Amino acid sequence: MQTTTEVNLQNQYQKVRNYSEKLVSNLKTEDFVVQAAPHVSPAKWHLAHTTWFFEKFILEKFVPDYQHFNEEFLYLFNSYYETVGTPHPQARRGLITRPTVDETMEYRKRVDQTMSKLLVTHGEKKEIQELVEIGLQHEQQHQELILMDIKYNFSFNPLYPAFHNNQHPHESVPALQFEKIDGGLVQVGYDGEGFCFDNENPRHKTYLAPYQLANRPVTNWEFIQFINDGGYEHPEHWLSDGWQKVHQEHWGHPQYWEKQEGEWYSYTLAGLTKLDLNAPVSHVSYYEADAYARWAGKRLPTEQEWEYALETHTLDGHFMEDGYYQPHSHYSEEAAFHKAFGDVWEWTQSPYVPYPRSKPLAGSLGEYNAKFMANQFVLKGGSCVTPRSHIRLTYRNFFYPDMRWQFSGFRLADDQ
Amino acid sequence: MQTTTEVNLQNQYQKVRNYSEKLVSNLKTEDFVVQAAPHVSPAKWHLAHTTWFFEKFILEKFVPDYQHFNEEFLYLFNSYYETVGTPHPQARRGLITRPTVDETMEYRKRVDQTMSKLLVTHGEKKEIQELVEIGLQHEQQHQELILMDIKYNFSFNPLYPAFHNNQHPHESVPALQFEKIDGGLVQVGYDGEGFCFDNENPRHKTYLAPYQLANRPVTNWEFIQFINDGGYEHPEHWLSDGWQKVHQEHWGHPQYWEKQEGEWYSYTLAGLTKLDLNAPVSHVSYYEADAYARWAGKRLPTEQEWEYALETHTLDGHFMEDGYYQPHSHYSEEAAFHKAFGDVWEWTQSPYVPYPRSKPLAGSLGEYNAKFMANQFVLKGGSCVTPRSHIRLTYRNFFYPDMRWQFSGFRLADDQ
Amino acid sequence: MQTTTEVNLQNQYQKVRNYSEKLVSNLKTEDFVVQAAPHVSPAKWHLAHTTWFFEKFILEKFVPDYQHFNEEFLYLFNSYYETVGTPHPQARRGLITRPTVDETMEYRKRVDQTMSKLLVTHGEKKEIQELVEIGLQHEQQHQELILMDIKYNFSFNPLYPAFHNNQHPHESVPALQFEKIDGGLVQVGYDGEGFCFDNENPRHKTYLAPYQLANRPVTNWEFIQFINDGGYEHPEHWLSDGWQKVHQEHWGHPQYWEKQEGEWYSYTLAGLTKLDLNAPVSHVSYYEADAYARWAGKRLPTEQEWEYALETHTLDGHFMEDGYYQPHSHYSEEAAFHKAFGDVWEWTQSPYVPYPRSKPLAGSLGEYNAKFMANQFVLKGGSCVTPRSHIRLTYRNFFYPDMRWQFSGFRLADDQ
Amino acid sequence: MQTTTEVNLQNQYQKVRNYSEKLVSNLKTEDFVVQAAPHVSPAKWHLAHTTWFFEKFILEKFVPDYQHFNEEFLYLFNSYYETVGTPHPQARRGLITRPTVDETMEYRKRVDQTMSKLLVTHGEKKEIQELVEIGLQHEQQHQELILMDIKYNFSFNPLYPAFHNNQHPHESVPALQFEKIDGGLVQVGYDGEGFCFDNENPRHKTYLAPYQLANRPVTNWEFIQFINDGGYEHPEHWLSDGWQKVHQEHWGHPQYWEKQEGEWYSYTLAGLTKLDLNAPVSHVSYYEADAYARWAGKRLPTEQEWEYALETHTLDGHFMEDGYYQPHSHYSEEAAFHKAFGDVWEWTQSPYVPYPRSKPLAGSLGEYNAKFMANQFVLKGGSCVTPRSHIRLTYRNFFYPDMRWQFSGFRLADDQ
Repeated sequence: MQTTTEVNLQNQYQKVRNYSEKLVSNLKTEDFVVQAAPHVSPAKWHLAHTTWFFEKFILEKFVPDYQHFNEEFLYLFNSYYETVGTPHPQARRGLITRPTVDETMEYRKRVDQTMSKLLVTHGEKKEIQELVEIGLQHEQQHQELILMDIKYNFSFNPLYPAFHNNQHPHESVPALQFEKIDGGLVQVGYDGEGFCFDNENPRHKTYLAPYQLANRPVTNWEFIQFINDGGYEHPEHWLSDGWQKVHQEHWGHPQYWEKQEGEWYSYTLAGLTKLDLNAPVSHVSYYEADAYARWAGKRLPTEQEWEYALETHTLDGHFMEDGYYQPHSHYSEEAAFHKAFGDVWEWTQSPYVPYPRSKPLAGSLGEYNAKFMANQFVLKGGSCVTPRSHIRLTYRNFFYPDMRWQFSGFRLADDQ
Repeated sequence: MQTTTEVNLQNQYQKVRNYSEKLVSNLKTEDFVVQAAPHVSPAKWHLAHTTWFFEKFILEKFVPDYQHFNEEFLYLFNSYYETVGTPHPQARRGLITRPTVDETMEYRKRVDQTMSKLLVTHGEKKEIQELVEIGLQHEQQHQELILMDIKYNFSFNPLYPAFHNNQHPHESVPALQFEKIDGGLVQVGYDGEGFCFDNENPRHKTYLAPYQLANRPVTNWEFIQFINDGGYEHPEHWLSDGWQKVHQEHWGHPQYWEKQEGEWYSYTLAGLTKLDLNAPVSHVSYYEADAYARWAGKRLPTEQEWEYALETHTLDGHFMEDGYYQPHSHYSEEAAFHKAFGDVWEWTQSPYVPYPRSKPLAGSLGEYNAKFMANQFVLKGGSCVTPRSHIRLTYRNFFYPDMRWQFSGFRLADDQ
Repeated sequence: MQTTTEVNLQNQYQKVRNYSEKLVSNLKTEDFVVQAAPHVSPAKWHLAHTTWFFEKFILEKFVPDYQHFNEEFLYLFNSYYETVGTPHPQARRGLITRPTVDETMEYRKRVDQTMSKLLVTHGEKKEIQELVEIGLQHEQQHQELILMDIKYNFSFNPLYPAFHNNQHPHESVPALQFEKIDGGLVQVGYDGEGFCFDNENPRHKTYLAPYQLANRPVTNWEFIQFINDGGYEHPEHWLSDGWQKVHQEHWGHPQYWEKQEGEWYSYTLAGLTKLDLNAPVSHVSYYEADAYARWAGKRLPTEQEWEYALETHTLDGHFMEDGYYQPHSHYSEEAAFHKAFGDVWEWTQSPYVPYPRSKPLAGSLGEYNAKFMANQFVLKGGSCVTPRSHIRLTYRNFFYPDMRWQFSGFRLADDQ
Repeated sequence: MQTTTEVNLQNQYQKVRNYSEKLVSNLKTEDFVVQAAPHVSPAKWHLAHTTWFFEKFILEKFVPDYQHFNEEFLYLFNSYYETVGTPHPQARRGLITRPTVDETMEYRKRVDQTMSKLLVTHGEKKEIQELVEIGLQHEQQHQELILMDIKYNFSFNPLYPAFHNNQHPHESVPALQFEKIDGGLVQVGYDGEGFCFDNENPRHKTYLAPYQLANRPVTNWEFIQFINDGGYEHPEHWLSDGWQKVHQEHWGHPQYWEKQEGEWYSYTLAGLTKLDLNAPVSHVSYYEADAYARWAGKRLPTEQEWEYALETHTLDGHFMEDGYYQPHSHYSEEAAFHKAFGDVWEWTQSPYVPYPRSKPLAGSLGEYNAKFMANQFVLKGGSCVTPRSHIRLTYRNFFYPDMRWQFSGFRLADDQ
């Protein structure tokens, strides 16, 4: 007889896998194929790659004489696991029209069937349970990527296609306040019972000098003040690498913004809409977040400051559930920190480095996180396209400081 | 009552337009979208652009209060007509998922209906007749491009998708012979009654010293001898710009070839197949054609030498009809020149320059041909993917000397 | 006893070699080293490469047990002769500080001494005479290049260094007239007794339709009219590749021009000076020459039209002698064609292709000219930095159509 | 009467300024000019830029009606101070032949004279003293850069020029040992009386878990073991960005190494020499240091671990004095840490970020350090080309992780 854990895992497997397909259900076939830049991927590729993950790291190992759906997929849908073979070049994912969307769904179905059987027959194995858990967390990350990438790809189309019609303007915003936090020799990192990635533990001591943290992220309206004050024209606000980007890429506003007849619009998953002035600013790079903070006479928090503050205080956020963004109808007045989860990922000033004594996963899955620990910065929280069950206080998201296609904003900090 | 000319034009219009759609009928929706390099286009784009051509250059002008199917298409599906507005960047055609294929077909249908009406009501107007003729010739060029581009795009897929299953190995090949031709003060260029492009006339005098021309193109087998003799390693065979390309692009054989266990294969529209040793070598650049000729102690013909020779001698060729390649079952023994039309376009040593006293078309259609008269070389004949009715002795095709995705081969020439 | 030919050759050798050194005598040591773009070379490199030419193609062959000055120089100072070994990368010539200028002069001296001895002992050998002649013509080409390259390199310095103080404003300019020329079956190409390059012969028949040729090149003043009329903004004047260049390189005027407070200045070898409005426009690309001609309702001449017209008519020109530009004090009124030699090289509309039945030089010197016969256009005449004795009616200079650092202008032509 | 501080500063000024000129005294004029990559600069530029620094930040401010030596130099010799005007593009420093070396020395002399006068008349001003101190520290940094850049530039010359003949092979090397260090809540950062940069303070608390640190850097011999074990071929040792670099740049060994007939050589300031197997490996990127550490089952230390260990233990090092490298004749047996200063800069695993509560310098000098705090890693110690008086325990050097032209090595660390 199966244990509750085993049954839960089977349910969880089905739920997560189904959700990926639900997420893309209103895409046209053509929308599944393209890739507007090397760092984004076609939706079809995401659906296939998350499937490859189960095939490569579980079925190959635990199903005797496992027959691959297609041997070439091992190459085509490997993302970056160099230790299992040179992957198909990332920049060419958008050139591969076959397998078609239908064939990709066929591939998913075949793997899901085999996974289901495996979970029934061997679901009690701890190692399989752990790998399935990673596979599902992995798929949830790609669910967020699917939406980021669709938005990015669609944004190149002068017809401004809308992915959904699900808009939620922010009717108000709390006044900006800074919470004082004592710090001291505190602890950060995960040590609970549930799942965490290998970059979130071990929980460990760190020293924080007394600091202050803003009660909410910077809003679009506030960011416009920065722009209007010549924020993008004054080198003194900018990191050197950021200033170079501003010039190379002709940055003058967050990604997806455009001005029409004196008014700001933003391209969203619901098409081109008037900018929501109360919403947290989104799609800014680390450089822009950092420049804003300097201009405002503040700074960004470290990831430790952010995590410690949010751990010990009441908070308020917005989430996506069942594939749709579910905003709170109002701010809770008693919350100290607003919108820390579920609106925008928040840039911290912490480069993405290993935690003391952390150990990457064994084998090829060790490539999952550890090898990216250079040149990237940590973001905390979670965005409106992050599945709710994927959000975690100790979660460490990371992006290169010039990237802007993720739903990234920031909140200010200061010394005391 | 309509004249025969008018009725013919209507029929011709329908036939050519239908053929484009027939050509892509076995593509999957996904195949219509991608673009593996800036110089190729998605099939969907070709279908829309050829439609735009009729809308832009005929309907806009002759239909009062013409309502565009979609105003944005004027921008999206302009290829390179700078004088009617800056076109959508060529390199981004493969990022545009909407309009979908179905919507594109809708666009075609709408324009075809309006065109049909116009041809009934105003089909007697000489100017309309001429523009329709150009529009159809234009569409035929894109029919060839559709097949070139599908082959190119598919070739990036390690699954080697097949577009059709229509292979025709060449069972034999005539011995290589050189026909002696006297030359003198001859004439080249079009002066018939029918259609020709503005780069083919006026017919004019040119002086040719006595020369020789090969009876058939160089074959794959012959080209392998060049490779085996170190053809790609010896700088003395190569033009300087070609030698640079060989190194930059790591050329060691024609495009689409690959060697597996000592044997040559070629990616074709019918998938990966053993190289047909008797077939004319195809998908070579001008540089490779020229290098082979030097290695062989010969040279390429000029376009004038080619045209004059072919005009005055019996010849033999293979064609595509109704969208399928229709090879002759045998070489005709009495023909002096084999396969001059319908197998491969043949590189000449003639840069693409204006004919003396030639006049580009008036207005924006003047951009059709004339502005490309630098840095390209003339190819004569026609290939196995050229619609038969599009083939003409005086036709001047042109490509940059490093391009290889067209079905291009060559035949040798020599002085007497 | 030595023949007059032999003595002349010795004198000629000394004269040409000395002149190279005289040419650079007012450079500072620092000026000899740099290279502002891959297509230009440091003056030091030119001095060494022309010396390498004699060492490589004459001394190595005719001096028994020849000891090289430095074996590494065979690599460092090879320009593009792939058949004698892979050359040092052209783009890195400006990184080589050693040999120093003094050591380079030492190298020249050593080779000159050995050459002098060889000319005394074996100067009667026809093969040596021919190779020395080529070596000297080659050195004269580099004398022109030295001045082109110094101008180019200096132009990157905001201090506007002056190479000399030798300015000659053009006080007047004849009215623009077009000479009518009948054409017919004419002959072009060299067949005299003296030296010519292997791209100038054999003399051969060509057919010219009746045409007209301007009596003088287009002037700076005339070119300003083109600019003022939006010449650089209207795509209809431009070849497609040229239009792309205009945008990529932000062209809005000839190279070296700049506007200060509404007035045009030009950077010259005499520093930044007010633009000489009567002088022929110089430092324009083929694309600009061609665009001007279209704008003016004319065209560029073919190289055959140019050569035939100049051969049969009186003409007038300016020259450089003894390293200094020696302008005529006035136009001769009886001349049909002015400034055809010695002011600016004149772009023709003829791509640089082999003459019928031409034969490249044997061996590695076959790389001298023939391998560049793709993607370049022929210029006729000679410029103010061309040594006078290097100018020849049948001379075919050639550059890529986007190059502008040569002293290149153009004259208009038209059909009759 | 002048105070000792004032006199000392004047002496110090002269000493440091003279030393820059002594350092380049055996360069040829040609060597001063070139720049083999955008990140290096010509020696001439360094001499001028350090002079500009005094002119811009001191003389302009404190000398009434100050007359610049040349107004254009304000643009030409600004490095990266965007707030005082857009600097001349870094990548073009090697194209500027004028001012000549002599004129540059003239410039130095003029500024030195004015500075001397100022120091006599206003040397008591605290602000001037502080700015002079920064200017001298700045010049010392450029003294190191001059040697790094000369080595880099010379390395492109196949003649392998030698800058000096001053070689010091390492006759022995202590056995590798790891010192155990307890850590805890410790302090790092500068709080002494003397000079420090604005990135070294304030001294602040940080928590260190118990760790171990190697007694000496990794040697060339040890690094060869990594290479021989396929270190550059196994992706599991590498950070993702590093692995990409390995492939893009074809890395297979540290910069300046080359293998001849099975033996390793290295290009050094004394020319090409056999690799000194006992010397610390140098000219490795962060990626290579990190990959070696993973391969060895260890890790790199954090900057805090490094500084804390070195602060509290005896140590041993080699230095450069008076422009020449002065190695110890032997290792001191009692030292816990060898060669921590004066051989190679040592990569740490710490990204270069601001210290808590640190404040950049006011005004434009705030651009000195702070704006580089992204994408770079901290190196500790000091190299054989760092002036001895410039070395400091709390010094934080920083480079991008892919840079290799600095004299950079590393020592291993581990958890306890």
